[in-house]
Amino acid sequence: MSRGGIDLGGTKIQAAVVDGDGRVIGEARHPTPVEGGPPAVALQMAETMREAARSAGVEPSALEGVGVGSPGDVDARAGTVANARNLTGWLDAFSLSSTLSDQLGTKVKLGNDVGVATMAEAELGAGRERRSLLGVFWGTGVGGGVVLGRKLWKGRGAAGEIGHTVVRRGGARCSCGRRGCLEAYAGRATMEARARREVKRGTHTDLFKIMEKRGRTRLTSGIWARALDRGDPLAAKLLDRAVAALGTGIASAVNLLDVEAVVLGGGLGVRLGPLYLDAIRAEMAEHLFVAGQPPDLRVVELGDLGGAIGASLLVRP
Amino acid sequence: MSRGGIDLGGTKIQAAVVDGDGRVIGEARHPTPVEGGPPAVALQMAETMREAARSAGVEPSALEGVGVGSPGDVDARAGTVANARNLTGWLDAFSLSSTLSDQLGTKVKLGNDVGVATMAEAELGAGRERRSLLGVFWGTGVGGGVVLGRKLWKGRGAAGEIGHTVVRRGGARCSCGRRGCLEAYAGRATMEARARREVKRGTHTDLFKIMEKRGRTRLTSGIWARALDRGDPLAAKLLDRAVAALGTGIASAVNLLDVEAVVLGGGLGVRLGPLYLDAIRAEMAEHLFVAGQPPDLRVVELGDLGGAIGASLLVRP
Repeated sequence: MSRGGIDLGGTKIQAAVVDGDGRVIGEARHPTPVEGGPPAVALQMAETMREAARSAGVEPSALEGVGVGSPGDVDARAGTVANARNLTGWLDAFSLSSTLSDQLGTKVKLGNDVGVATMAEAELGAGRERRSLLGVFWGTGVGGGVVLGRKLWKGRGAAGEIGHTVVRRGGARCSCGRRGCLEAYAGRATMEARARREVKRGTHTDLFKIMEKRGRTRLTSGIWARALDRGDPLAAKLLDRAVAALGTGIASAVNLLDVEAVVLGGGLGVRLGPLYLDAIRAEMAEHLFVAGQPPDLRVVELGDLGGAIGASLLVRP
Repeated sequence: MSRGGIDLGGTKIQAAVVDGDGRVIGEARHPTPVEGGPPAVALQMAETMREAARSAGVEPSALEGVGVGSPGDVDARAGTVANARNLTGWLDAFSLSSTLSDQLGTKVKLGNDVGVATMAEAELGAGRERRSLLGVFWGTGVGGGVVLGRKLWKGRGAAGEIGHTVVRRGGARCSCGRRGCLEAYAGRATMEARARREVKRGTHTDLFKIMEKRGRTRLTSGIWARALDRGDPLAAKLLDRAVAALGTGIASAVNLLDVEAVVLGGGLGVRLGPLYLDAIRAEMAEHLFVAGQPPDLRVVELGDLGGAIGASLLVRP
């Protein structure tokens, strides 16, 4: 029986319909509404799911269920999401599960966006032959998922925050307000802030020229990749710094958990991972306690659809 | 039915006999032989176990079995220990399990010393109401154990190395040869090396005077505690540095695993933990991503016997 999955992101809503073998048989994507708050987002999510179901030739109500990977504080039991800070006006708890369920006529289950994406890789992607896996999602922030014994480890609900592993006590200021976190060096938001400060100080870079030419207001993964292609020294320097922090933070996590594999995803991870895997491995080697058996480090295989596919796993019978 | 447990340490062998309810009904302790290699150590372990059994009024062969918490690379399936670097002449794999079993007339199972001590706290000590727990053993080095869903997580066999979490990329040299590890700041061995360097540079401290007065050649936990009591500034400075690293490394682990509790053990942890728990909590608060729900941080409850009690859990029916 088919299942639906929705990946709710800060910029886009990705929906997929997956058959019993985990194959994607329908999908749709729309921008995330920036006005109207949670109800508007929920309506757009339902519409995107209906579109994906149509493209798969099934009625939404005929789906086994729909899973949702959401940012913010997800209370799976209550079916609510709160503090989704990368979405507009979504701080109070909103009953996303029941709202979507009413719209789609099937059961809806919620999960953490990064957690479900990690489970998708663990079951169907780059980690499918592994019992233990660390997912590292390198994008605007740096998120993580921990799969141990083929199950997502959630702790008290907030596990996986590898982006806030300290790589340098007293170091750079992070977007979370603390100091020295991995994300303070590798998150796209902090990398962009750093680039802007360097430009103010007179450092030359093509990063913002490329951004303007593309009509963007943020340094997207594609812009970083393009600048790097052009040999932009500031882009190269900030990416080297990010990669050093990533290798350090991942090695600390591996020393603690001794996982079999690490999969790298996220906007920057998918775009630049293949280029930087060896550099990350080299940095990890500086810190791995058991030097002789590094984990397998790979880029995610399910790419952009990983979140939606992972969400669909939440409603597996 | 009673079970035996042996904690094999670098300086002492501690044996205990535990009844079906986890109560210690007999115990014995002897120094670890520094000559004769693994066979001599195994003989002394058997003798210590016999003595503990005698004090419990049971024959060793009548025990359900004997568990051993060992340093080094433990291969539980093969029953061997290799690379026990804090023991003399123990690099090659030695069949500890079958040697002891022949001596004692009952089955013998091996486990990692820090892992079994963490399980003891999880089942019978400071973590007994917790489903997830991080054990941090602050002594000569800094070891760790990870209990998730009431089970010890071993990874590929080497999980728990929280001492080699990087707290400062490019920072102090660790006893493992790498840089910036938690143990480079908090391990008693590296703290002593640092104190010796400071003395060479002319810094005043009573640490080594107390050591000589006690007829020791190493700065034991008791010596650090005594110097601190006397208001020795170098001792206070190096312990503050250790505590900052501990709080940082533990916070990184909690951000990743979101465990319910952290228990602090080891020579320094047992001796100085009560004094420093608040300082460790304060440092953790600087780095915890979910600031509102820090894990419960406590000192181990089973003290010196935790390792032997934990080892006895290996042979539970």
